Amino acid sequence: MSNITKKVSWSSRPDESGAAGEGTPLLNGSEQPRHSRQLSEEGSLFQIGRLSTVDLEEERTSDEDSLRGRPKEIPHNEKLLSLKYESLDYDNIENQLFLEEERRMSHMGFRCLEISRWVVCGLIGFLTGLIACFIDIAVEQLAGIKYQVVKENIEKFTEVGGLSISLILWAVLNSAIVMLGAIIVAFFEPIAAGSGIPQIKCYLNGVKIPRVVRLKTLVVKVCGVICSVVGGLAVGKEGPMIHSGAVVAAGVSQGRSTSLKRDFKFQMSRRVSSRSGDFFSSCRGGVLFSLEEGASFWNQMLTWRIFFASMISTFTLNFFLSIYHKNPGDLSNPGLINFGRFETDSVTYNLYEIPLFIAMGAIGGLLGALFNVLNYWLTIFRIRYVHRPCLQVMEAMLVAAVTATVSFTMIYFSNDCQPLGPEHTEEYPLQVNTHLPLAVWNSSAVCFRCNEAGLTKMWSCILFCADGEYNSMATAFFNTPERSVRSLFHNQPGTYNPLTLGLFTLTYFFLACWTYGLSVSAGVFIPSLLIGAAWGRLCGILLASLTSSSSIWADPGKYALIGAAAQLGGIVRMTLSLTVIMVEATGNVTYGLPIMLVLMTAKIVGDYFQEGLYDIHIKLQSVPFLHWEAPATSHWLTARSVMSSPVTCLNRLEKVGTIVDILSNTSTNHNGFPVVELPAKLCGLILRSQLIVLLKHKVFVELARSRLTHRKLQLKDFRDAYPRFPPIQSIHVSQDERECMMDLREFMNPTPYTVPQDTSLPRVFKLFRALGLRHLVVVDDENRVIGLVTRKDLARYHLGKHGLEELQLAQT
Amino acid sequence: MSNITKKVSWSSRPDESGAAGEGTPLLNGSEQPRHSRQLSEEGSLFQIGRLSTVDLEEERTSDEDSLRGRPKEIPHNEKLLSLKYESLDYDNIENQLFLEEERRMSHMGFRCLEISRWVVCGLIGFLTGLIACFIDIAVEQLAGIKYQVVKENIEKFTEVGGLSISLILWAVLNSAIVMLGAIIVAFFEPIAAGSGIPQIKCYLNGVKIPRVVRLKTLVVKVCGVICSVVGGLAVGKEGPMIHSGAVVAAGVSQGRSTSLKRDFKFQMSRRVSSRSGDFFSSCRGGVLFSLEEGASFWNQMLTWRIFFASMISTFTLNFFLSIYHKNPGDLSNPGLINFGRFETDSVTYNLYEIPLFIAMGAIGGLLGALFNVLNYWLTIFRIRYVHRPCLQVMEAMLVAAVTATVSFTMIYFSNDCQPLGPEHTEEYPLQVNTHLPLAVWNSSAVCFRCNEAGLTKMWSCILFCADGEYNSMATAFFNTPERSVRSLFHNQPGTYNPLTLGLFTLTYFFLACWTYGLSVSAGVFIPSLLIGAAWGRLCGILLASLTSSSSIWADPGKYALIGAAAQLGGIVRMTLSLTVIMVEATGNVTYGLPIMLVLMTAKIVGDYFQEGLYDIHIKLQSVPFLHWEAPATSHWLTARSVMSSPVTCLNRLEKVGTIVDILSNTSTNHNGFPVVELPAKLCGLILRSQLIVLLKHKVFVELARSRLTHRKLQLKDFRDAYPRFPPIQSIHVSQDERECMMDLREFMNPTPYTVPQDTSLPRVFKLFRALGLRHLVVVDDENRVIGLVTRKDLARYHLGKHGLEELQLAQT
Repeated sequence: MSNITKKVSWSSRPDESGAAGEGTPLLNGSEQPRHSRQLSEEGSLFQIGRLSTVDLEEERTSDEDSLRGRPKEIPHNEKLLSLKYESLDYDNIENQLFLEEERRMSHMGFRCLEISRWVVCGLIGFLTGLIACFIDIAVEQLAGIKYQVVKENIEKFTEVGGLSISLILWAVLNSAIVMLGAIIVAFFEPIAAGSGIPQIKCYLNGVKIPRVVRLKTLVVKVCGVICSVVGGLAVGKEGPMIHSGAVVAAGVSQGRSTSLKRDFKFQMSRRVSSRSGDFFSSCRGGVLFSLEEGASFWNQMLTWRIFFASMISTFTLNFFLSIYHKNPGDLSNPGLINFGRFETDSVTYNLYEIPLFIAMGAIGGLLGALFNVLNYWLTIFRIRYVHRPCLQVMEAMLVAAVTATVSFTMIYFSNDCQPLGPEHTEEYPLQVNTHLPLAVWNSSAVCFRCNEAGLTKMWSCILFCADGEYNSMATAFFNTPERSVRSLFHNQPGTYNPLTLGLFTLTYFFLACWTYGLSVSAGVFIPSLLIGAAWGRLCGILLASLTSSSSIWADPGKYALIGAAAQLGGIVRMTLSLTVIMVEATGNVTYGLPIMLVLMTAKIVGDYFQEGLYDIHIKLQSVPFLHWEAPATSHWLTARSVMSSPVTCLNRLEKVGTIVDILSNTSTNHNGFPVVELPAKLCGLILRSQLIVLLKHKVFVELARSRLTHRKLQLKDFRDAYPRFPPIQSIHVSQDERECMMDLREFMNPTPYTVPQDTSLPRVFKLFRALGLRHLVVVDDENRVIGLVTRKDLARYHLGKHGLEELQLAQT
Repeated sequence: MSNITKKVSWSSRPDESGAAGEGTPLLNGSEQPRHSRQLSEEGSLFQIGRLSTVDLEEERTSDEDSLRGRPKEIPHNEKLLSLKYESLDYDNIENQLFLEEERRMSHMGFRCLEISRWVVCGLIGFLTGLIACFIDIAVEQLAGIKYQVVKENIEKFTEVGGLSISLILWAVLNSAIVMLGAIIVAFFEPIAAGSGIPQIKCYLNGVKIPRVVRLKTLVVKVCGVICSVVGGLAVGKEGPMIHSGAVVAAGVSQGRSTSLKRDFKFQMSRRVSSRSGDFFSSCRGGVLFSLEEGASFWNQMLTWRIFFASMISTFTLNFFLSIYHKNPGDLSNPGLINFGRFETDSVTYNLYEIPLFIAMGAIGGLLGALFNVLNYWLTIFRIRYVHRPCLQVMEAMLVAAVTATVSFTMIYFSNDCQPLGPEHTEEYPLQVNTHLPLAVWNSSAVCFRCNEAGLTKMWSCILFCADGEYNSMATAFFNTPERSVRSLFHNQPGTYNPLTLGLFTLTYFFLACWTYGLSVSAGVFIPSLLIGAAWGRLCGILLASLTSSSSIWADPGKYALIGAAAQLGGIVRMTLSLTVIMVEATGNVTYGLPIMLVLMTAKIVGDYFQEGLYDIHIKLQSVPFLHWEAPATSHWLTARSVMSSPVTCLNRLEKVGTIVDILSNTSTNHNGFPVVELPAKLCGLILRSQLIVLLKHKVFVELARSRLTHRKLQLKDFRDAYPRFPPIQSIHVSQDERECMMDLREFMNPTPYTVPQDTSLPRVFKLFRALGLRHLVVVDDENRVIGLVTRKDLARYHLGKHGLEELQLAQT
């Protein structure tokens, strides 16, 4: 087993030394696996000659790999690339049928198509907004009920003195709610776990993650996130909302749902659905998010539509929330994430603070890398030992109980009591509460603001402070994370004790790290901000105490903002979209430059140690993810050296039996087949899905009688089958039919994109990525097929610490 | 002449009926012009067969064309496509030299390159901010001086009663200043006229507009815009600032300037310079602007860098302005364009206002189309009759004088006097003025706020109102456009009289329309906003008077905002970037959706009548501009039917004499040459610029002695020559040398992108656009060169009112 090293995988690479003849593909039903290099052990030819420096590099990498490739390390599958993921097709299949249809279409027809796309986008935005609204309201209502139970219990037991009973009740209640959420995720739809952002990122990148955009996933995700938030875990609901938006987008644009088994006949064009993007309720951030994170290729109209959908979504959310809050028609609520406006006049920054901000960015990068490393180890532990659903549910319950207990303990041992003065009630003005009046109860279902009358008594009694005082640790802990962030940003100087903040940062850091990756629906966005805001404010307080003279340090809220940005940047490593989101959430463009600087510093520092959290999880899933550009040092690789070869090709007039055999060959499971004229001259490309539709409709030519046995196939037949084609096994082909021929000329794409065999990898990569390709045919200078470049062939190369590394392909 | 119709141009298209042999290119120094189809009249073969429906369409278009093609219409050259514009090269020339260099580069080297790019971007942002700052301060200072002169004059003549003398002085002063601006533009750098946005749009699209990014252009532009703003024209300074940013970006990234004749040795890589984008001081709007408007292809890192540069630029601007305003280090000024914040709490909108907004969008679209049609006629008039520089200067002076006179007359006949109450001084708080304290003087150098003491008297005496009152027409007219927009947005209800607003809209509309296209540096951005804000506020007032009961109509400022968006959208037809700019300029995301809806409505309505203003000017310049997508109904066109053919090809080992002859052939003036092996088999592509460098360095192989006569050429030699290669005429090649051979193998790009001849136009277009290509080789199924697709071949097709139209190519 320890031989499964790069050396072996390199050795079987076809024909690096240049004899073109050996590269000729096997034709017609070759049974040889396309990825034959994998695990095969014949030969050990290294390429020689001009690539000598490269050889050294490669040798070194191989040795390291052989160390890493030990059996016990196999569960750390980030060095593998899974073959189970298929790619999405963004490229139009421009076959004769398609061209004929397009040519029949009038100018008016194109205009209607365009309008229908906008309508679809509006609908997507509307539904996404509706879902966000539902989550918001459900969280409020359920947390309200939970609070009612707890409140009654506290009133009952406080006089008896059994505070521990209250604690136990809370912990149990939280565990039960989280259990519910974990059960539906673990048993019904494991893909709904986590924030969903890694999955959406892959999907936008062009990798088809199974079941990620199904209705069932959506339902589980929505219920799951409600449970985890109500259950008081250290989670946010933003990631799951992005995922929900993506499911809605995919569902609406395809106009159907497998789970519902109904077809809404909405699908105007496959192109609408090709990549309808994801929708962040915070609109501009969302557009940039989808650009920064996933976009396989860039299209102006698409961006407009995404922008439009985000607008509609924000609008819908605000509209329904305004009705819910008995203030219908008032649409002035700016987005879902809103940390309160930093007033330009009151909070300014100065030139000499910028080095400080950069230092904070570096701290954020370090802490983010630590978070990611810990979470990485935890995830590997989970992959190895916590893979059974019931274990996963138990872990989630444990985390919920621990979260409740730790919070309680922290508050119990904290004696940071602050006077509950008039300036304090002012900081929580009621109009802020109208948006999330009961969301205050989220985190641990302790209301401390709703009913000002009964508050102080209950407050002081629970939170171990005298009447007229409140516990600032509780403000940080027993609060919905959004509210906590807001108060860390905006509370008066002196509201928080440095010790409280330090302890809180420490505890919440580990809790959030433990929570992310549990089998519940949960985002890491808001918890990261909260950690960062806490230590940022701590920095601000320390700075103010060091330099007591200057008034510019007076406001620690500014540092809380910078800290939050630094921590979030250090964990997820996005720059552009986070800047926009942060600026938008605080309603002030003044901090644009500092936030951007901080995010960049955090990214640079963090990248030195460990990748971003989402990238780690993508890698652990062995997803063939394509980055924006080819690895920098990959110019010495050519199309010939990366391509899969030999290729299974088909003739233009091909025997049905051969096609069925090729499609049934589970060891290869190819999805695209070059169509050739003898000798091996490329004349088209046909997809598995097309072949299956052709087989299903029996589009055969009986040579003996030389007539067509089928009705004329329409493009509609292909569309009806989209996006889920039946497996080849479900199509029965009789022995007679196997002898028939199939004429592929009308259905193949007659002009597939090709590259010459000497094209460098960056050039191949650019073509592949810019056009959103799935198959790229490599031809020699006689236009003969000699290989096929797919996503996996490109994703295999990545830049490691020691230069270019090559991942292995695995069937798992 | 009336025969120059589509029919003729189609007829000479090579070989539509499919015999591949005829498509074989002429090799080695073919003298035949590549665009031979143009004006040639032999034969009249229509393609026959499967394109029968298309033939009908074509016939119809031909007839229409023959009507349009009449001689008298020739000056309307938007039906022509000029051949004088060259394309930019975005695609890497991946020849052996390049690959060798890349392979030599270590991992560290790539990292340094990356860092240097960020540094260059920071520098670009810094310089752009500095220029914006310079313009701002210069306008203030000069307007101040002008004011001083006028003020002394008024004090002298008012008592004498000679108000007409003051008017004449103003008009003359304005004319003189504008004359200065017009002279430098018309005589020294005509490309610096206008807003510069159409030129930048073309440049980003990949068309090399001569001299558009030179230092001389920058200097003229900056001086010109200062003159036009100080001269009181109805112009904005935002467009020229974008242009300045682009010049800085191009200059810094290329690290040199021809005007300075110095090379800063800054150029790290051509790729840095490939498209450094434009920089709007208003940061996020700028990013989206460059995306929406120009971006030839999309690149994530590039966007980050543009964003970063915008941030730096805003930062620099604020920093220096804060020093100028004696408030150093206070960096809280959000951007250059700032119309004051709409407070969320005070100004809300309701669901039932949305139809109203959409109706206003339609009005904006109509008025915008009217503006564009008028400006289009005016521009054609100018092209025909006002083409001499001195005439252009005189026209500019005339406009300046008329603007001053009309404003004066309007104020004279207006009796809309409003009390100058305490609430009024509150609307112009001093801290707003700190940003533009003297900019108030811009438009006509009448200060009415600076010196509150002496103000009222002067005010009432000039502006025909009693003491303690002010003339609201004057508020709209005698003010810098930005300030006017701001007061239209934010002044209390009742500040403006409907009649005043109506008259103002009418006058300013025609003035702005007349001004745009003058031979001065001037933007149309702010004037459009001002027109829109005026009629928008008028709508608001009328609505409020119609429905006196409801308080929601109370604030006409909201309608001013919507009107401004509608008018701007109707004129320039941008959607996404304008939404962002408007939202940012008003500091409130609440109006995001309404603004977007309004912009979309304005665009749809406006597009029905006439194109956007920038597109009109691009078309009138006959620029081969590529839109985002191929025209919708172009699926019936194939690469074979659009390509230029025959192609001048070179052999891998080519005679120097042949190369010199080909390059010297002015009738073709090709820029890219496929390199072939006999028989016509494609093996590479080489550019004119590369050949010239090779000739300059005498990279010849003397066959007789079979040795190399030159030193080994480095990639550096090519870079040193970039971006301006000497013309072929300047290179002397002796008769002996003409007999030498040149070995192109090492220098050509061995893997140019190719398409098969049957590829449909949308597919060719997508490849071309996604990769930012300049030449795309069309090959047959034996990999033989049969044609070349260039930008002009694709830009020729556009969607007119009656289906697909084909533009003619012209040498002008």
